Amino acid sequence: MADNEVNALRAILDGRWADMRTRVRERLGTEEWATPTAPLPLTDYRARTTAQLVELLHEDWTEAGFSAEPGNRGDVGASLTFFESLAHVDLSLFVKFGVQIGLFGGAIAGLGTQRHHSAYLPAVSTGDLLGCFAMTETGGGSDVANLRTTATYDPDTDEIVVHTPTASAMKDYIGNAAKDGTMAAVFAQLIVGGESHGVHCVLVPIRDSGGAALPGVTLRDCGAKMGLPGVDNGEIAFERVRVPRENLLDRFGTIGADGAYSSPIENDARRFFSMLGTLVRGRVSVGAAAGAATRNGLALAVRYAARREQFLRPDGDTGIRLIDYATHRRRLLVPLARSYALALATNELVEDLHALEQERAQWEQEQTDDERVGNAAESDHVAEAEQAHEADIRRLEERAASLKIANTAHATRTIQACREACGGAGYMWENRFGALKNDTDVFTTFEGDNTVLLQLVAKGLLTRYKDAFQSFDTGAMIRFAARDVAETVVERAFGGTIIQRLIAGAPGRDTDNALADRGGQLAVFEDRDEHTLAGLAARMRARSDDFKSDPVGVLNIVQPHMLAAAWAHIDRLLLEALAGATEECEDEACHHLLGLVCDLFVYSTVEVNAAWFLEHGRISAAQSKEISRRVDELCAQLAPHADTLVDAFGIADAWLDCPLLERA
Amino acid sequence: MADNEVNALRAILDGRWADMRTRVRERLGTEEWATPTAPLPLTDYRARTTAQLVELLHEDWTEAGFSAEPGNRGDVGASLTFFESLAHVDLSLFVKFGVQIGLFGGAIAGLGTQRHHSAYLPAVSTGDLLGCFAMTETGGGSDVANLRTTATYDPDTDEIVVHTPTASAMKDYIGNAAKDGTMAAVFAQLIVGGESHGVHCVLVPIRDSGGAALPGVTLRDCGAKMGLPGVDNGEIAFERVRVPRENLLDRFGTIGADGAYSSPIENDARRFFSMLGTLVRGRVSVGAAAGAATRNGLALAVRYAARREQFLRPDGDTGIRLIDYATHRRRLLVPLARSYALALATNELVEDLHALEQERAQWEQEQTDDERVGNAAESDHVAEAEQAHEADIRRLEERAASLKIANTAHATRTIQACREACGGAGYMWENRFGALKNDTDVFTTFEGDNTVLLQLVAKGLLTRYKDAFQSFDTGAMIRFAARDVAETVVERAFGGTIIQRLIAGAPGRDTDNALADRGGQLAVFEDRDEHTLAGLAARMRARSDDFKSDPVGVLNIVQPHMLAAAWAHIDRLLLEALAGATEECEDEACHHLLGLVCDLFVYSTVEVNAAWFLEHGRISAAQSKEISRRVDELCAQLAPHADTLVDAFGIADAWLDCPLLERA
Repeated sequence: MADNEVNALRAILDGRWADMRTRVRERLGTEEWATPTAPLPLTDYRARTTAQLVELLHEDWTEAGFSAEPGNRGDVGASLTFFESLAHVDLSLFVKFGVQIGLFGGAIAGLGTQRHHSAYLPAVSTGDLLGCFAMTETGGGSDVANLRTTATYDPDTDEIVVHTPTASAMKDYIGNAAKDGTMAAVFAQLIVGGESHGVHCVLVPIRDSGGAALPGVTLRDCGAKMGLPGVDNGEIAFERVRVPRENLLDRFGTIGADGAYSSPIENDARRFFSMLGTLVRGRVSVGAAAGAATRNGLALAVRYAARREQFLRPDGDTGIRLIDYATHRRRLLVPLARSYALALATNELVEDLHALEQERAQWEQEQTDDERVGNAAESDHVAEAEQAHEADIRRLEERAASLKIANTAHATRTIQACREACGGAGYMWENRFGALKNDTDVFTTFEGDNTVLLQLVAKGLLTRYKDAFQSFDTGAMIRFAARDVAETVVERAFGGTIIQRLIAGAPGRDTDNALADRGGQLAVFEDRDEHTLAGLAARMRARSDDFKSDPVGVLNIVQPHMLAAAWAHIDRLLLEALAGATEECEDEACHHLLGLVCDLFVYSTVEVNAAWFLEHGRISAAQSKEISRRVDELCAQLAPHADTLVDAFGIADAWLDCPLLERA
Repeated sequence: MADNEVNALRAILDGRWADMRTRVRERLGTEEWATPTAPLPLTDYRARTTAQLVELLHEDWTEAGFSAEPGNRGDVGASLTFFESLAHVDLSLFVKFGVQIGLFGGAIAGLGTQRHHSAYLPAVSTGDLLGCFAMTETGGGSDVANLRTTATYDPDTDEIVVHTPTASAMKDYIGNAAKDGTMAAVFAQLIVGGESHGVHCVLVPIRDSGGAALPGVTLRDCGAKMGLPGVDNGEIAFERVRVPRENLLDRFGTIGADGAYSSPIENDARRFFSMLGTLVRGRVSVGAAAGAATRNGLALAVRYAARREQFLRPDGDTGIRLIDYATHRRRLLVPLARSYALALATNELVEDLHALEQERAQWEQEQTDDERVGNAAESDHVAEAEQAHEADIRRLEERAASLKIANTAHATRTIQACREACGGAGYMWENRFGALKNDTDVFTTFEGDNTVLLQLVAKGLLTRYKDAFQSFDTGAMIRFAARDVAETVVERAFGGTIIQRLIAGAPGRDTDNALADRGGQLAVFEDRDEHTLAGLAARMRARSDDFKSDPVGVLNIVQPHMLAAAWAHIDRLLLEALAGATEECEDEACHHLLGLVCDLFVYSTVEVNAAWFLEHGRISAAQSKEISRRVDELCAQLAPHADTLVDAFGIADAWLDCPLLERA
């Protein structure tokens, strides 16, 4: 019975690329691949991770986008699922792979053109060419548009001169830079004919085959980090290093043989965002990996709680298991419910990215065909179609950012809670929480600091909101800030028919019992999303006159509201994914269980945000207290199924093997 | 000007034992004592920490309770301040010291009698005898009253037989057990004449001078932990190990030469809590150390934020510092305000413990004098006085638990926030956050898991509440649960005259503007404390009939309310300390600054608990929104003083030295 439920739940969580998950589990589900349960010296961990990377690169993983079939970037969904699965195994290996295939290979594939693809991707795919993604600078951090490294075209020699003008312009924290990388994809301000064209990416060899830095290149090892010991992060500085003009990855901007710069996108900023857009897979992967690692932590802590007894019942004979305690259940099951929502939302994101990239690949193929037969009109048509879909891509990027924030913030909080829930045993390195915590810690920072990304999400929401209303004039704002208007125009985040049907059938968000019904729950989350966004828009409009005189002051007034709007949106995304999967589930027992998980996600999310719901008259004081009681009740109902819920994660035994449960 | 403020603030934070802080800073304020900025192999770190311990033990720190004057346990306040200061230096050293002097030495001093003191304390103080505090068992965790190791008196040989009956009874995670300890203070169920007398402590040699385990003793190294690499934690199992009867630490229960057990405290449970009570210094120290380590993290992150620029102003010329951002200020200054409250409350706790222990020492001296001159009546008088003060001691233990919870929970959350606020640089080991995070992580667990301790605090509050009302009969509850009655009988947490005067002068908690006035703020926090406790008491009373049939079920219904009551009490303790110090401060600029810190603590605490204040009609929706605005405003007002506020922590430069600020 429980086995049936595990399998049914697992099929839902595994999603469309379940086969890839199975393959990784079978291939890497042994102790030798799992994160070691004793710390290794840095040198050994690095050597181990490099060897693992190269070993896998030499196997046939064509579908995952690296392979014995060099240059084939594979199937997007399968590739992202492969990456997510690696995060259950070892996070250093995940990041090392991410740097080599996702970032370095991704930059060449996404920013380069055919000649770069054929020249480099085969060697990238087999690991014969290990490379770096050199974007971040010491002084720059999140502000990548203003990075300071320069790439100046020298027409006399037809070369590009890559240079680090100041210490703060040094490339920093770069994976593969300390030891393995022989080439770097360097992001720099491109200067042609004395004019700057914004950030572009140039391939620069940095090491000879013996591992020594090439002339003009200075490399420094970042040394030990809090975690990810298998990744050799380093610094790179360039002293007027010359590379051929052809090393410019020139899909979005090129230098002709005549030495003139040209680009299909005129605006520097827009071009830069298009470039970043091709790297969206990285952001998706980081979120998905944080989600997977969190599930490892939950599986350990939940199993421990279901076995470990602490204190005796008053009869003095039988012990009370940790999971029998209301507070302990809350610590674990509330995050467990959110992990379900995150996993399902991440799966949907991967599916949608897969579909969009397939669409794009089809256009590009058609475009190439048209160009070959000289059909300019058809080519224009394709370009239009591409533009029409740009909005979809932006929205997907926004969702990728949303889930990166949600997954990584959840990972930091939840793995901590899991460690504490295992007490002193959780503090022993052999029980895996040390590595889980330390390795995931930086996920809130990389691929964009969460606080910065939250603002990016809010900006995206605002832009769409603004587009829907054409302009932000005051009269319009007064009308539109009102909730009953706003709700009709802000589009549903996913727009899936299940969600629409559920909301349509709900008794209405304003009734006393909105949360008792799935449709009502969705309407409540939608309402919070829309109201928060409308409030933010109104605030921005009200301050727009002051913006010129005191931009930072105005930003600071709206900034907390931007964060609130982004979080409200994220919670809604998560509920829509979880509610959709629950509704679609046909197995009865499993449907019931998922329904409880969904309820717990809803009530616990409302509880955390109770102040907002109370402040905005969405719930009464009595309802608010009732909601906390419901959270406790749902935790009690789910407790007997806790093992089932974590077994359904399908994490290989070897990846969780540790003495923890023996000591329970 | 800023220097004056720093000095004035620092004098307040340094408190009564400022000289000890200065002495530690001067003696250990060098790179060689500070936590290394590159990870060391476990063996090296352990050797380093042991050497540091022994080096200090051979210097004259008599006042701190270890010394060139063996056996002198020193001045309690100075000793606790010494320990807190060590936490700024290196947390492994702090714990190693704590194990040797606080726990092992503390057990002998607090649980033993004169013959143990003279036989062992000199060698403990000089480090010639390194020892373990063997309380925790693998299977036991927080449930120390039911631990399973046995100590059985054998009248035939006049020995005590110490035995580990099952694998789960093994002593686990014991500091000094893996490498250095030659003797252990072992907590075990004492069995005399076939009768169990509950937990007592027995001294058992575990290693010979060559470091080998003695016959019957099995030692295992716990190996690497998440942090605290300088502490050699291990497991100890005993196979019927025999020690002389005199090895029983027998202050609270002894075995006579006739083989009969006797104790001044008849009840096993009460005796056990008295024994634990003598160990309260440990709990105070762990809280204080977590507070100190958090201030290290805040000093780094605040200084970084005040220097590091991120993104340019729209003019494109000047950068915006991190601390100029509203969200970044919130991340750092809200916890900074709480750190002030915690530091001041911890200082008060140390002063009160110092005073209580001095009182006790005086009685004991008088008692000894009386006994010497055979004055039995006087001796009785002293015993009565001691009993009368037992309530004070319990309350102090409750405060020690409260501040242990508050300091350690704050440390975990805040050091994480500080790491994230330093981005990728924060993730590099050299920038100290790795060690700070990993070393403090277990503080939420040791000396009592925070969730368990919260319930202990709530139980203490309830007991006092119940005592005040004599009984929990329903009629009384209905009357007393009402807030306006409850507030008159639940005693003020500190009862200091400043707090009473402030509250008396307040315009009243029910006015619109209660929070604008210090007295009103105190009244609001007092009200939340009292109301939450009264509600908890009412709930317990309502369920008391069901308790027999379903004790765990009843516990689970009230458990979340116990946690809420404990937290409400803790927040009030913190405010009373911070408000008291603010009110007492005579330097005008400094008084103003502390006032802002106090306001920020108040508003941010109300904001975090806004749902409670809204649910209970304490604030309106409009007030709740206004409170969030005030938090932003206060952060903006404090931002220019952020450096001053962390400079006042008086942390030696060497303890914070790292490349972080160079890269800002």
